[in-house]
Amino acid sequence: MLSIILLGTGNVARHLFDAFQENDHLQVVQVVGRNTEALNYFKKRANITSEFKELKTADIYIIALSDDVISTVSKELRINNKLVVHTSGAVEMAALTGIVRPGVFYPLQTFSNENKINFKEVPICIEAKHREDLEILRGLAARLSDKVYVVSSERRRVLHLAAVFVNNFTNYMYVMAADICRENDLPFELLKPLIEETANKVKKQPPYEVQTGPARRNDSGTMKKHLELLKNTAREEIYSVLSKSIRETYRNGNQ
Amino acid sequence: MLSIILLGTGNVARHLFDAFQENDHLQVVQVVGRNTEALNYFKKRANITSEFKELKTADIYIIALSDDVISTVSKELRINNKLVVHTSGAVEMAALTGIVRPGVFYPLQTFSNENKINFKEVPICIEAKHREDLEILRGLAARLSDKVYVVSSERRRVLHLAAVFVNNFTNYMYVMAADICRENDLPFELLKPLIEETANKVKKQPPYEVQTGPARRNDSGTMKKHLELLKNTAREEIYSVLSKSIRETYRNGNQ
Repeated sequence: MLSIILLGTGNVARHLFDAFQENDHLQVVQVVGRNTEALNYFKKRANITSEFKELKTADIYIIALSDDVISTVSKELRINNKLVVHTSGAVEMAALTGIVRPGVFYPLQTFSNENKINFKEVPICIEAKHREDLEILRGLAARLSDKVYVVSSERRRVLHLAAVFVNNFTNYMYVMAADICRENDLPFELLKPLIEETANKVKKQPPYEVQTGPARRNDSGTMKKHLELLKNTAREEIYSVLSKSIRETYRNGNQ
Repeated sequence: MLSIILLGTGNVARHLFDAFQENDHLQVVQVVGRNTEALNYFKKRANITSEFKELKTADIYIIALSDDVISTVSKELRINNKLVVHTSGAVEMAALTGIVRPGVFYPLQTFSNENKINFKEVPICIEAKHREDLEILRGLAARLSDKVYVVSSERRRVLHLAAVFVNNFTNYMYVMAADICRENDLPFELLKPLIEETANKVKKQPPYEVQTGPARRNDSGTMKKHLELLKNTAREEIYSVLSKSIRETYRNGNQ
Protein backbone atom coordinates (compact mmCIF):
# COMPACT_ATOMS: atom_id res chain seq x y z
CA MET A 1 0.00 0.00 0.00
CA LEU A 2 1.33 3.39 -1.05
CA SER A 3 0.09 6.37 0.95
CA ILE A 4 -0.30 9.71 -0.76
CA ILE A 5 -0.88 13.30 0.29
CA LEU A 6 -2.29 15.60 -2.36
CA LEU A 7 -1.53 19.32 -2.22
CA GLY A 8 -4.01 21.18 -4.34
CA THR A 9 -7.74 21.09 -5.06
CA GLY A 10 -7.93 22.00 -8.76
CA ASN A 11 -8.77 19.87 -11.76
CA VAL A 12 -5.50 17.92 -11.75
CA ALA A 13 -5.82 17.16 -8.03
CA ARG A 14 -9.43 16.07 -8.42
CA HIS A 15 -8.78 13.80 -11.37
CA LEU A 16 -5.72 12.25 -9.72
CA PHE A 17 -7.66 11.76 -6.50
CA ASP A 18 -10.48 9.94 -8.28
CA ALA A 19 -8.03 7.75 -10.14
CA PHE A 20 -6.12 6.93 -6.93
CA GLN A 21 -9.36 6.08 -5.11
CA GLU A 22 -10.19 3.45 -7.71
CA ASN A 23 -7.01 1.54 -6.90
CA ASP A 24 -6.86 -0.67 -3.80
CA HIS A 25 -3.09 -0.35 -3.55
CA LEU A 26 -3.16 3.40 -3.20
CA GLN A 27 -4.45 5.44 -0.30
CA VAL A 28 -4.86 9.20 -0.27
CA VAL A 29 -4.49 9.99 3.42
CA GLN A 30 -4.93 13.75 3.12
CA VAL A 31 -5.77 16.56 0.73
CA VAL A 32 -4.32 19.99 1.48
CA GLY A 33 -5.67 23.23 0.06
CA ARG A 34 -6.33 26.83 0.95
CA ASN A 35 -9.65 26.87 -0.87
CA THR A 36 -11.98 25.39 1.74
CA GLU A 37 -14.89 25.20 -0.68
CA ALA A 38 -12.84 23.20 -3.17
CA LEU A 39 -11.71 20.94 -0.31
CA ASN A 40 -15.32 19.79 0.16
CA TYR A 41 -14.98 17.63 -2.94
CA PHE A 42 -12.57 15.38 -1.03
CA LYS A 43 -13.81 15.44 2.54
CA LYS A 44 -15.96 12.30 2.47
CA ARG A 45 -13.13 10.17 1.19
CA ALA A 46 -10.01 11.65 2.79
CA ASN A 47 -8.77 13.86 5.60
CA ILE A 48 -8.70 17.48 4.49
CA THR A 49 -6.87 20.51 5.83
CA SER A 50 -6.01 24.09 4.97
CA GLU A 51 -3.09 24.26 7.40
CA PHE A 52 0.43 23.10 6.63
CA LYS A 53 1.01 22.54 10.33
CA GLU A 54 -1.66 19.79 10.25
CA LEU A 55 0.17 17.96 7.48
CA LYS A 56 0.17 14.19 7.98
CA THR A 57 2.81 11.69 6.91
CA ALA A 58 2.76 9.71 3.67
CA ASP A 59 5.04 7.93 1.21
CA ILE A 60 4.48 10.48 -1.55
CA TYR A 61 3.52 14.15 -1.50
CA ILE A 62 2.03 15.34 -4.77
CA ILE A 63 2.01 19.08 -5.39
CA ALA A 64 -0.79 19.61 -7.91
CA LEU A 65 -0.72 23.40 -7.82
CA SER A 66 -0.23 26.09 -10.42
CA ASP A 67 3.29 26.48 -11.80
CA ASP A 68 4.08 29.74 -10.08
CA VAL A 69 3.59 28.49 -6.51
CA ILE A 70 5.29 25.08 -6.74
CA SER A 71 8.65 26.42 -5.60
CA THR A 72 7.21 28.47 -2.74
CA VAL A 73 5.06 25.63 -1.44
CA SER A 74 7.92 23.15 -1.61
CA LYS A 75 9.98 25.51 0.55
CA GLU A 76 7.25 25.72 3.15
CA LEU A 77 6.71 21.98 3.26
CA ARG A 78 9.69 21.10 5.46
CA ILE A 79 9.48 17.43 4.56
CA ASN A 80 12.49 15.30 5.30
CA ASN A 81 13.35 12.16 3.44
CA LYS A 82 9.99 11.74 1.71
CA LEU A 83 9.29 11.70 -1.98
CA VAL A 84 7.82 15.03 -3.12
CA VAL A 85 6.68 15.48 -6.72
CA HIS A 86 4.92 18.14 -8.74
CA THR A 87 2.58 17.56 -11.67
CA SER A 88 3.60 20.34 -14.03
CA GLY A 89 4.79 20.07 -17.60
CA ALA A 90 6.62 23.37 -17.60
CA VAL A 91 8.38 23.42 -14.23
CA GLU A 92 11.79 21.84 -13.66
CA MET A 93 12.22 19.20 -11.01
CA ALA A 94 14.83 21.46 -9.42
CA ALA A 95 12.09 23.98 -8.61
CA LEU A 96 11.23 21.75 -5.66
CA THR A 97 13.46 23.82 -3.41
CA GLY A 98 15.00 22.17 -0.41
CA ILE A 99 13.42 18.80 -1.15
CA VAL A 100 15.84 15.89 -0.64
CA ARG A 101 13.86 13.42 -2.73
CA PRO A 102 12.26 15.45 -5.55
CA GLY A 103 10.40 14.09 -8.54
CA VAL A 104 7.84 14.85 -11.22
CA PHE A 105 4.57 13.11 -12.01
CA TYR A 106 3.19 14.84 -15.08
CA PRO A 107 -0.04 13.51 -16.59
CA LEU A 108 -0.04 14.78 -20.18
CA GLN A 109 -3.71 15.61 -20.47
CA THR A 110 -6.10 18.53 -20.13
CA PHE A 111 -8.46 18.16 -17.20
CA SER A 112 -11.76 19.89 -16.69
CA ASN A 113 -14.71 19.76 -14.37
CA GLU A 114 -16.96 18.38 -17.05
CA ASN A 115 -15.19 15.45 -18.60
CA LYS A 116 -14.31 12.15 -16.97
CA ILE A 117 -10.88 11.02 -18.15
CA ASN A 118 -9.85 7.46 -18.92
CA PHE A 119 -6.53 7.46 -17.09
CA LYS A 120 -5.40 4.22 -18.72
CA GLU A 121 -4.83 6.25 -21.89
CA VAL A 122 -3.15 9.26 -20.28
CA PRO A 123 0.64 9.34 -20.78
CA ILE A 124 2.32 9.93 -17.45
CA CYS A 125 5.81 11.42 -17.61
CA ILE A 126 7.90 10.71 -14.55
CA GLU A 127 11.26 11.95 -13.31
CA ALA A 128 13.11 11.55 -10.01
CA LYS A 129 16.45 12.58 -8.60
CA HIS A 130 17.09 9.13 -7.11
CA ARG A 131 16.76 5.85 -8.95
CA GLU A 132 14.73 4.20 -6.18
CA ASP A 133 12.24 7.04 -6.30
CA LEU A 134 11.92 6.70 -10.04
CA GLU A 135 10.87 3.10 -9.48
CA ILE A 136 8.30 4.17 -6.89
CA LEU A 137 6.88 6.68 -9.36
CA ARG A 138 6.92 4.09 -12.12
CA GLY A 139 4.90 1.78 -9.90
CA LEU A 140 2.43 4.52 -9.00
CA ALA A 141 2.04 5.65 -12.62
CA ALA A 142 1.58 2.08 -13.84
CA ARG A 143 -1.37 1.64 -11.48
CA LEU A 144 -3.13 4.50 -13.28
CA SER A 145 -1.96 4.32 -16.85
CA ASP A 146 -0.67 1.95 -19.51
CA LYS A 147 1.58 4.70 -20.82
CA VAL A 148 4.43 5.57 -18.49
CA TYR A 149 7.45 7.49 -19.77
CA VAL A 150 10.62 8.61 -18.05
CA VAL A 151 11.21 12.16 -19.26
CA SER A 152 13.88 14.58 -18.05
CA SER A 153 13.01 18.17 -17.12
CA GLU A 154 14.66 19.41 -20.29
CA ARG A 155 12.69 17.10 -22.56
CA ARG A 156 9.50 17.63 -20.57
CA ARG A 157 9.78 21.32 -21.37
CA VAL A 158 9.87 20.51 -25.08
CA LEU A 159 6.92 18.16 -24.69
CA HIS A 160 5.00 20.84 -22.87
CA LEU A 161 5.76 23.25 -25.70
CA ALA A 162 4.37 20.75 -28.21
CA ALA A 163 1.33 20.34 -25.94
CA VAL A 164 0.75 24.10 -26.09
CA PHE A 165 0.41 23.76 -29.86
CA VAL A 166 -2.06 20.85 -29.86
CA ASN A 167 -4.05 22.03 -26.85
CA ASN A 168 -3.84 25.79 -26.12
CA PHE A 169 -3.31 26.99 -29.68
CA THR A 170 -5.75 24.48 -31.14
CA ASN A 171 -8.40 25.54 -28.67
CA TYR A 172 -7.71 29.12 -29.69
CA MET A 173 -8.42 28.14 -33.31
CA TYR A 174 -11.82 26.98 -32.01
CA VAL A 175 -12.24 30.30 -30.15
CA MET A 176 -11.59 32.30 -33.31
CA ALA A 177 -13.89 30.10 -35.39
CA ALA A 178 -16.63 30.44 -32.77
CA ASP A 179 -16.18 34.23 -32.85
CA ILE A 180 -16.39 34.30 -36.64
CA CYS A 181 -19.60 32.26 -36.47
CA ARG A 182 -21.13 34.42 -33.76
CA GLU A 183 -20.33 37.66 -35.58
CA ASN A 184 -22.08 36.30 -38.66
CA ASP A 185 -25.05 34.63 -36.96
CA LEU A 186 -23.88 31.18 -37.95
CA PRO A 187 -24.23 28.38 -35.38
CA PHE A 188 -20.84 27.14 -34.12
CA GLU A 189 -22.54 23.72 -33.88
CA LEU A 190 -22.02 23.44 -37.62
CA LEU A 191 -18.28 23.07 -37.10
CA LYS A 192 -18.29 20.44 -34.37
CA PRO A 193 -18.30 17.34 -36.59
CA LEU A 194 -15.38 18.85 -38.50
CA ILE A 195 -13.48 19.51 -35.26
CA GLU A 196 -14.03 15.92 -34.19
CA GLU A 197 -12.98 14.42 -37.50
CA THR A 198 -9.88 16.64 -37.72
CA ALA A 199 -8.74 15.20 -34.39
CA ASN A 200 -9.76 11.68 -35.46
CA LYS A 201 -7.73 11.76 -38.63
CA VAL A 202 -4.45 12.36 -36.85
CA LYS A 203 -4.88 9.16 -34.86
CA LYS A 204 -4.41 7.15 -38.02
CA GLN A 205 -2.33 9.30 -40.34
CA PRO A 206 0.60 11.69 -39.80
CA PRO A 207 -0.73 15.27 -39.72
CA TYR A 208 1.78 16.30 -42.39
CA GLU A 209 0.06 13.97 -44.85
CA VAL A 210 -3.52 15.06 -44.20
CA GLN A 211 -2.97 18.82 -44.41
CA THR A 212 -5.43 20.40 -46.82
CA GLY A 213 -6.86 23.86 -47.45
CA PRO A 214 -6.18 27.00 -49.48
CA ALA A 215 -2.66 27.56 -48.08
CA ARG A 216 -1.66 23.94 -48.68
CA ARG A 217 -2.62 24.13 -52.34
CA ASN A 218 -1.47 27.77 -52.62
CA ASP A 219 -4.95 28.89 -53.69
CA SER A 220 -4.26 32.63 -53.58
CA GLY A 221 -7.76 33.60 -54.73
CA THR A 222 -9.46 31.95 -51.76
CA MET A 223 -6.83 33.24 -49.31
CA LYS A 224 -7.29 36.78 -50.60
CA LYS A 225 -11.06 36.58 -50.07
CA HIS A 226 -10.57 35.16 -46.58
CA LEU A 227 -8.21 37.98 -45.68
CA GLU A 228 -10.77 40.52 -46.86
CA LEU A 229 -13.33 38.96 -44.53
CA LEU A 230 -10.83 39.21 -41.64
CA LYS A 231 -9.74 42.76 -42.41
CA ASN A 232 -8.69 44.83 -39.42
CA THR A 233 -8.92 42.02 -36.89
CA ALA A 234 -6.15 40.21 -35.01
CA ARG A 235 -7.22 37.14 -36.95
CA GLU A 236 -5.97 38.72 -40.17
CA GLU A 237 -2.36 38.54 -38.97
CA ILE A 238 -2.85 35.01 -37.63
CA TYR A 239 -4.35 33.87 -40.92
CA SER A 240 -1.43 35.40 -42.85
CA VAL A 241 1.32 34.02 -40.65
CA LEU A 242 -0.14 30.50 -40.58
CA SER A 243 -0.88 30.45 -44.31
CA LYS A 244 2.63 31.63 -45.10
CA SER A 245 4.13 28.92 -42.93
CA ILE A 246 1.92 26.21 -44.43
CA ARG A 247 2.88 27.35 -47.95
CA GLU A 248 6.56 27.24 -47.07
CA THR A 249 6.27 23.84 -45.40
CA TYR A 250 4.76 22.34 -48.54
CA ARG A 251 6.54 24.41 -51.16
CA ASN A 252 9.11 21.78 -51.87
CA GLY A 253 6.94 18.79 -51.03
CA ASN A 254 4.41 17.09 -53.23
CA GLN A 255 0.92 18.52 -53.37
CA MET B 1 -36.63 8.03 -56.89
CA LEU B 2 -34.08 10.77 -57.47
CA SER B 3 -31.44 10.09 -60.10
CA ILE B 4 -27.97 11.55 -59.67
CA ILE B 5 -24.88 11.96 -61.81
CA LEU B 6 -21.64 12.55 -59.95
CA LEU B 7 -18.82 14.48 -61.61
CA GLY B 8 -15.58 13.76 -59.80
CA THR B 9 -13.80 10.77 -58.30
CA GLY B 10 -12.07 12.25 -55.25
CA ASN B 11 -12.80 11.84 -51.56
CA VAL B 12 -15.96 13.95 -51.59
CA ALA B 13 -17.35 12.07 -54.60
CA ARG B 14 -16.55 8.69 -53.05
CA HIS B 15 -18.09 9.49 -49.69
CA LEU B 16 -21.21 10.98 -51.30
CA PHE B 17 -21.50 7.99 -53.61
CA ASP B 18 -21.34 5.54 -50.71
CA ALA B 19 -23.93 7.51 -48.76
CA PHE B 20 -26.25 7.72 -51.79
CA GLN B 21 -25.93 3.98 -52.41
CA GLU B 22 -27.19 3.23 -48.92
CA ASN B 23 -30.46 4.98 -49.64
CA ASP B 24 -33.17 3.23 -51.70
CA HIS B 25 -34.67 6.48 -52.85
CA LEU B 26 -31.51 7.67 -54.54
CA GLN B 27 -29.85 6.27 -57.61
CA VAL B 28 -26.45 7.26 -58.93
CA VAL B 29 -26.81 6.55 -62.62
CA GLN B 30 -23.31 7.63 -63.63
CA VAL B 31 -19.95 8.77 -62.31
CA VAL B 32 -17.85 10.98 -64.59
CA GLY B 33 -14.12 11.50 -64.18
CA ARG B 34 -10.94 11.88 -66.17
CA ASN B 35 -8.97 9.68 -63.80
CA THR B 36 -9.78 6.20 -65.10
CA GLU B 37 -8.06 4.50 -62.18
CA ALA B 38 -10.12 6.45 -59.64
CA LEU B 39 -13.25 5.59 -61.66
CA ASN B 40 -12.71 1.91 -60.87
CA TYR B 41 -13.98 2.52 -57.35
CA PHE B 42 -17.47 3.11 -58.76
CA LYS B 43 -17.69 0.77 -61.75
CA LYS B 44 -19.39 -2.18 -60.09
CA ARG B 45 -22.20 -0.04 -58.78
CA ALA B 46 -22.73 2.61 -61.46
CA ASN B 47 -22.06 3.45 -65.06
CA ILE B 48 -18.72 5.24 -65.42
CA THR B 49 -17.28 7.41 -68.14
CA SER B 50 -14.40 9.76 -68.88
CA GLU B 51 -16.15 11.45 -71.75
CA PHE B 52 -18.58 14.33 -71.44
CA LYS B 53 -20.20 13.30 -74.71
CA GLU B 54 -21.32 10.06 -73.04
CA LEU B 55 -23.05 11.96 -70.26
CA LYS B 56 -26.40 10.43 -69.31
CA THR B 57 -29.50 12.20 -68.02
CA ALA B 58 -30.41 12.59 -64.35
CA ASP B 59 -32.40 14.79 -61.99
CA ILE B 60 -29.31 16.25 -60.30
CA TYR B 61 -25.73 16.71 -61.46
CA ILE B 62 -23.25 17.02 -58.61
CA ILE B 63 -19.89 18.57 -59.42
CA ALA B 64 -17.55 17.24 -56.72
CA LEU B 65 -14.37 18.64 -58.18
CA SER B 66 -11.65 20.95 -56.93
CA ASP B 67 -12.59 24.62 -56.60
CA ASP B 68 -10.56 25.86 -59.53
CA VAL B 69 -12.24 23.71 -62.19
CA ILE B 70 -15.89 24.04 -61.12
CA SER B 71 -16.54 27.01 -63.39
CA THR B 72 -14.81 25.48 -66.41
CA VAL B 73 -16.58 22.14 -66.07
CA SER B 74 -19.97 23.78 -65.62
CA LYS B 75 -19.41 25.62 -68.91
CA GLU B 76 -18.59 22.40 -70.73
CA LEU B 77 -21.58 20.54 -69.33
CA ARG B 78 -24.22 22.01 -71.66
CA ILE B 79 -27.07 20.84 -69.49
CA ASN B 80 -30.46 22.39 -70.04
CA ASN B 81 -33.10 22.66 -67.40
CA LYS B 82 -31.50 20.27 -64.92
CA LEU B 83 -30.34 20.98 -61.41
CA VAL B 84 -26.54 21.32 -61.28
CA VAL B 85 -24.79 21.78 -57.93
CA HIS B 86 -21.22 21.95 -56.69
CA THR B 87 -19.96 20.75 -53.30
CA SER B 88 -17.47 23.49 -52.42
CA GLY B 89 -17.43 25.69 -49.35
CA ALA B 90 -15.40 28.43 -50.96
CA VAL B 91 -16.95 28.79 -54.43
CA GLU B 92 -20.01 30.93 -55.11
CA MET B 93 -23.10 29.43 -56.66
CA ALA B 94 -22.71 31.92 -59.50
CA ALA B 95 -19.50 30.18 -60.53
CA LEU B 96 -21.73 27.58 -62.19
CA THR B 97 -21.49 29.43 -65.47
CA GLY B 98 -24.34 29.10 -67.94
CA ILE B 99 -26.33 26.80 -65.70
CA VAL B 100 -30.05 27.65 -65.62
CA ARG B 101 -30.78 25.82 -62.37
CA PRO B 102 -27.64 26.18 -60.23
CA GLY B 103 -27.25 25.14 -56.61
CA VAL B 104 -24.80 24.16 -53.90
CA PHE B 105 -24.62 20.98 -51.84
CA TYR B 106 -21.76 21.51 -49.38
CA PRO B 107 -21.10 18.79 -46.80
CA LEU B 108 -19.14 20.53 -44.03
CA GLN B 109 -16.69 17.78 -43.26
CA THR B 110 -13.17 16.65 -44.11
CA PHE B 111 -13.11 13.43 -46.08
CA SER B 112 -10.23 11.04 -46.44
CA ASN B 113 -9.54 7.62 -47.83
CA GLU B 114 -9.05 6.15 -44.40
CA ASN B 115 -12.02 7.16 -42.32
CA LYS B 116 -15.63 6.13 -42.80
CA ILE B 117 -17.89 9.12 -42.08
CA ASN B 118 -21.25 8.98 -40.33
CA PHE B 119 -23.19 11.19 -42.72
CA LYS B 120 -26.10 11.56 -40.30
CA GLU B 121 -23.87 13.93 -38.32
CA VAL B 122 -22.44 15.90 -41.22
CA PRO B 123 -23.99 19.36 -41.63
CA ILE B 124 -25.04 19.84 -45.26
CA CYS B 125 -25.30 23.43 -46.43
CA ILE B 126 -27.60 23.90 -49.40
CA GLU B 127 -28.35 26.79 -51.70
CA ALA B 128 -30.31 27.07 -54.94
CA LYS B 129 -31.30 29.82 -57.34
CA HIS B 130 -34.89 28.59 -57.56
CA ARG B 131 -37.13 27.80 -54.64
CA GLU B 132 -38.28 24.45 -56.10
CA ASP B 133 -34.66 23.36 -56.48
CA LEU B 134 -33.92 24.30 -52.88
CA GLU B 135 -36.68 21.90 -51.85
CA ILE B 136 -35.20 19.15 -54.01
CA LEU B 137 -31.81 19.71 -52.38
CA ARG B 138 -33.39 19.80 -48.94
CA GLY B 139 -35.00 16.42 -49.64
CA LEU B 140 -31.72 14.97 -50.92
CA ALA B 141 -29.71 16.32 -47.98
CA ALA B 142 -32.28 15.07 -45.45
CA ARG B 143 -31.87 11.53 -46.79
CA LEU B 144 -28.20 11.69 -45.84
CA SER B 145 -28.03 13.90 -42.78
CA ASP B 146 -30.03 15.11 -39.80
CA LYS B 147 -28.41 18.52 -40.14
CA VAL B 148 -29.50 20.46 -43.19
CA TYR B 149 -28.92 24.21 -43.40
CA VAL B 150 -29.81 26.73 -46.06
CA VAL B 151 -26.74 28.94 -46.41
CA SER B 152 -26.18 31.69 -48.99
CA SER B 153 -22.92 31.90 -50.94
CA GLU B 154 -21.86 34.90 -48.89
CA ARG B 155 -22.40 33.17 -45.57
CA ARG B 156 -20.97 29.92 -46.84
CA ARG B 157 -17.75 31.78 -47.53
CA VAL B 158 -17.62 32.88 -43.90
CA LEU B 159 -18.39 29.37 -42.73
CA HIS B 160 -15.62 28.03 -44.92
CA LEU B 161 -13.24 30.56 -43.42
CA ALA B 162 -14.18 29.35 -39.92
CA ALA B 163 -13.67 25.78 -41.14
CA VAL B 164 -10.14 26.71 -42.24
CA PHE B 165 -9.40 27.64 -38.62
CA VAL B 166 -10.79 24.46 -37.02
CA ASN B 167 -9.55 22.09 -39.71
CA ASN B 168 -6.60 23.38 -41.77
CA PHE B 169 -4.98 25.54 -39.11
CA THR B 170 -5.69 23.07 -36.32
CA ASN B 171 -4.12 20.28 -38.34
CA TYR B 172 -1.13 22.54 -38.87
CA MET B 173 -0.82 22.87 -35.07
CA TYR B 174 -0.57 19.07 -35.06
CA VAL B 175 2.06 19.23 -37.84
CA MET B 176 4.21 21.66 -35.84
CA ALA B 177 3.85 19.63 -32.64
CA ALA B 178 4.80 16.46 -34.52
CA ASP B 179 7.86 18.25 -35.91
CA ILE B 180 8.88 19.47 -32.45
CA CYS B 181 8.56 15.91 -31.14
CA ARG B 182 10.51 14.39 -34.02
CA GLU B 183 13.34 16.90 -33.73
CA ASN B 184 13.66 16.02 -30.04
CA ASP B 185 13.20 12.25 -30.30
CA LEU B 186 9.91 12.37 -28.42
CA PRO B 187 7.08 10.13 -29.66
CA PHE B 188 4.18 12.14 -31.14
CA GLU B 189 1.96 9.35 -29.74
CA LEU B 190 2.33 11.03 -26.36
CA LEU B 191 0.19 13.93 -27.56
CA LYS B 192 -2.69 11.98 -29.10
CA PRO B 193 -4.84 11.65 -25.96
CA LEU B 194 -4.45 15.41 -25.46
CA ILE B 195 -5.48 16.10 -29.06
CA GLU B 196 -8.56 13.93 -28.62
CA GLU B 197 -9.59 15.50 -25.32
CA THR B 198 -9.05 19.04 -26.63
CA ALA B 199 -11.56 18.30 -29.39
CA ASN B 200 -13.88 16.54 -26.92
CA LYS B 201 -14.03 19.46 -24.53
CA VAL B 202 -15.40 21.83 -27.11
CA LYS B 203 -18.41 19.61 -27.67
CA LYS B 204 -19.64 20.41 -24.19
CA GLN B 205 -18.21 23.82 -23.33
CA PRO B 206 -17.63 27.01 -25.34
CA PRO B 207 -13.95 27.13 -26.38
CA TYR B 208 -13.60 30.62 -24.91
CA GLU B 209 -14.25 29.19 -21.45
CA VAL B 210 -11.83 26.27 -21.62
CA GLN B 211 -8.82 28.19 -22.92
CA THR B 212 -5.77 27.51 -20.75
CA GLY B 213 -2.00 27.77 -21.10
CA PRO B 214 0.85 30.22 -20.54
CA ALA B 215 -0.60 32.94 -22.81
CA ARG B 216 -4.03 32.72 -21.18
CA ARG B 217 -2.60 33.29 -17.72
CA ASN B 218 0.05 35.69 -19.03
CA ASP B 219 2.86 33.49 -17.69
CA SER B 220 5.73 35.39 -19.29
CA GLY B 221 8.43 33.15 -17.80
CA THR B 222 7.12 30.03 -19.52
CA MET B 223 6.47 31.87 -22.78
CA LYS B 224 10.02 33.22 -22.80
CA LYS B 225 11.46 29.73 -22.33
CA HIS B 226 9.22 28.36 -25.07
CA LEU B 227 10.36 31.10 -27.46
CA GLU B 228 13.99 30.24 -26.71
CA LEU B 229 13.28 26.64 -27.68
CA LEU B 230 11.71 27.83 -30.94
CA LYS B 231 14.42 30.33 -31.78
CA ASN B 232 15.04 30.89 -35.47
CA THR B 233 12.16 28.77 -36.67
CA ALA B 234 8.93 29.82 -38.38
CA ARG B 235 7.20 28.49 -35.28
CA GLU B 236 8.72 31.30 -33.21
CA GLU B 237 6.63 33.90 -35.08
CA ILE B 238 3.52 31.71 -34.90
CA TYR B 239 3.97 31.20 -31.17
CA SER B 240 4.37 34.95 -30.63
CA VAL B 241 1.45 36.02 -32.76
CA LEU B 242 -0.93 33.48 -31.22
CA SER B 243 0.20 34.16 -27.66
CA LYS B 244 -0.19 37.89 -28.17
CA SER B 245 -3.71 37.42 -29.50
CA ILE B 246 -4.70 35.07 -26.66
CA ARG B 247 -3.34 37.57 -24.11
CA GLU B 248 -5.33 40.38 -25.70
CA THR B 249 -8.48 38.30 -25.91
CA TYR B 250 -8.38 37.58 -22.19
CA ARG B 251 -6.78 40.81 -20.97
CA ASN B 252 -10.08 42.33 -20.03
CA GLY B 253 -11.86 39.10 -19.22
CA ASN B 254 -11.76 37.12 -16.02
CA GLN B 255 -8.97 34.65 -15.52
